[in-house]
Amino acid sequence: MKDLDGFSHIILIYHFHLAKPGSLLVKPYMHDEYHGVFATRAPSRPNPIGISVVRLLRIEGNVLHVEDVDIVDGTPLLDIKPYVPEFDVRKVERIGWLEKNVHKLPYIRDDGRFSGG
Amino acid sequence: MKDLDGFSHIILIYHFHLAKPGSLLVKPYMHDEYHGVFATRAPSRPNPIGISVVRLLRIEGNVLHVEDVDIVDGTPLLDIKPYVPEFDVRKVERIGWLEKNVHKLPYIRDDGRFSGG
Repeated sequence: MKDLDGFSHIILIYHFHLAKPGSLLVKPYMHDEYHGVFATRAPSRPNPIGISVVRLLRIEGNVLHVEDVDIVDGTPLLDIKPYVPEFDVRKVERIGWLEKNVHKLPYIRDDGRFSGG
Repeated sequence: MKDLDGFSHIILIYHFHLAKPGSLLVKPYMHDEYHGVFATRAPSRPNPIGISVVRLLRIEGNVLHVEDVDIVDGTPLLDIKPYVPEFDVRKVERIGWLEKNVHKLPYIRDDGRFSGG
């Protein structure tokens, strides 16, 4: 974890270990219509890999204390990268079907549709 | 690829297939000192997974035309996700050792140090 504490934000890459095998068309939480899976962030996808940007609060030994986490407890972590605006921040013009749906984000909870739970 | 064409930017997740097994300390291109691998974007890492945000120009059948690509030709793609500012853009306070080095980014070329080439 050397040098990681210099970064205020990090990228977590993880295995969506609870995701059940899915279809190439999924109905995301944010929109009650089918979309191509690669146009969604749904966990049930051909390679069930997730990424999240989180704020790094502090490091104690091998334990990272982070906030803004949207990841299920016990999720296997595959990689950690520093979050660097020069690499990771882009000004977008279009966010497709999410344009009219992303405002629902703060109100959305997992209903188990991707884990069979 | 359904619905993906609505997004101006996408995230590519791929396998750094040319990366040789690495150490937990690496000397990145941008700084001639050793840093903890998880504080770098070096391809030689315990799980050699890379991520890049690219601009999506157009889709023809199963072929994505993108620009701003920093990925080696022939790299196996693991996943594609829509790039969504609400998920992916954060305002950072600190970028660690990169603070004094990220300005070198436009001038840096791969010298083969991570692929043994």
